[in-house]
Amino acid sequence: MNPQPRLLEVRQNVLRQNDVVARELRQRFREAGVYVVSLVSSPGSGKTAFLEKTLSLLRQSYRVAALVGDLATDNDAVRLARAQVPVKQITTGTLCHLEAAMVRTGLEGWELEQLDFLFIENVGNLVCPASYDVGENLRVVLLSVTEGEDKPLKYPTIFNTADAAVLTKMDLAEAVEFDSVAAEVNIQRVRPGLPLLKVSSKRGEGMGEWLQFLAVSRSLESREPQTVGA
Amino acid sequence: MNPQPRLLEVRQNVLRQNDVVARELRQRFREAGVYVVSLVSSPGSGKTAFLEKTLSLLRQSYRVAALVGDLATDNDAVRLARAQVPVKQITTGTLCHLEAAMVRTGLEGWELEQLDFLFIENVGNLVCPASYDVGENLRVVLLSVTEGEDKPLKYPTIFNTADAAVLTKMDLAEAVEFDSVAAEVNIQRVRPGLPLLKVSSKRGEGMGEWLQFLAVSRSLESREPQTVGA
Repeated sequence: MNPQPRLLEVRQNVLRQNDVVARELRQRFREAGVYVVSLVSSPGSGKTAFLEKTLSLLRQSYRVAALVGDLATDNDAVRLARAQVPVKQITTGTLCHLEAAMVRTGLEGWELEQLDFLFIENVGNLVCPASYDVGENLRVVLLSVTEGEDKPLKYPTIFNTADAAVLTKMDLAEAVEFDSVAAEVNIQRVRPGLPLLKVSSKRGEGMGEWLQFLAVSRSLESREPQTVGA
Repeated sequence: MNPQPRLLEVRQNVLRQNDVVARELRQRFREAGVYVVSLVSSPGSGKTAFLEKTLSLLRQSYRVAALVGDLATDNDAVRLARAQVPVKQITTGTLCHLEAAMVRTGLEGWELEQLDFLFIENVGNLVCPASYDVGENLRVVLLSVTEGEDKPLKYPTIFNTADAAVLTKMDLAEAVEFDSVAAEVNIQRVRPGLPLLKVSSKRGEGMGEWLQFLAVSRSLESREPQTVGA
């Protein structure tokens, strides 16, 4: 389909280079004892609201921080700062994903040993972030009920590379006639066994299960260094 | 920001190559007298529902057809076929945008002279499609009220390269507490003077204005070959 073999080749080199940095980051995270969770989704699926809620709840028991990626503006960092945890914005210009090297730069000056959880909110995009490892322990793909049940089938790679899926904006499920069963079937078809959570950041529903899922995932990781995810 | 100058260089070559094909397509469209409208947006903002409604209304007075791009599945083509107009699916694999060459291939076997309007639905993505000309006369960016008012500021390039913006899912505006004024201000800040329409594909609100906008844009184009958009 792609008529530019040379572009593909160069892109593969970039990916390999990214993987080297991602591996280095993963090693640093492990040594520091910080559990790293990345969030990927399309624009507007509620990543920032979900992350804000997560940070403000999690900080009651853990030391948490976040890096947030966007093409432009530091709106998200400003919003997330309301959760009263360290937040840094990474702007990517025209690039549709975060790369491991950007995460490394974003972390400069932070003492990872002082953190239990680090969240990385990727650029809103259901395609590009799928190919770039940023050293995370757990990659979570978000899908809002307003986007439609068919998205896992249309964007299989991002679901394939995720360790968990979260259905967001459940408070709107009825208004948009969201077919929860169809969505689950589609997710399982693309990525059998993927853990699935359902939340409403607005009403708080499902946040308890999500926090528990994070705590369990983190404890599994610290017990067995080779295990990624739950 | 990008640490790979070689990748940038190759990408620029690809873009130049794309522009050559896009120019050739635009010339063919003009000679055939078909007005070409492309739709770009993030995944789940309602492109397909909007296009289905548009095609079924427009076909009462015009000869219309559509090309739809997706990474995987031909779900959209199947859905759009319900509008009883010619529809062809282009699957891009892992590529996050349509390229002019894919459109050219997709058009094989179609007699463009037999069409008044051709719609091209791009892959759901607010980043990549911005950089690729597919020979369209009018590029329309869709933003659903569920995505939030800040998206134009976060994804300025796609709004900058558009000829019109459409706010979709207006029927959900109240449920999601959508701030219409803030959205308009943000769009105008990124792209002053951009025509803005508001629709609900579900309830049909705003579709009359949209069809009128299309008819006017098309008539302006056929009168003055150099004018693009309204």
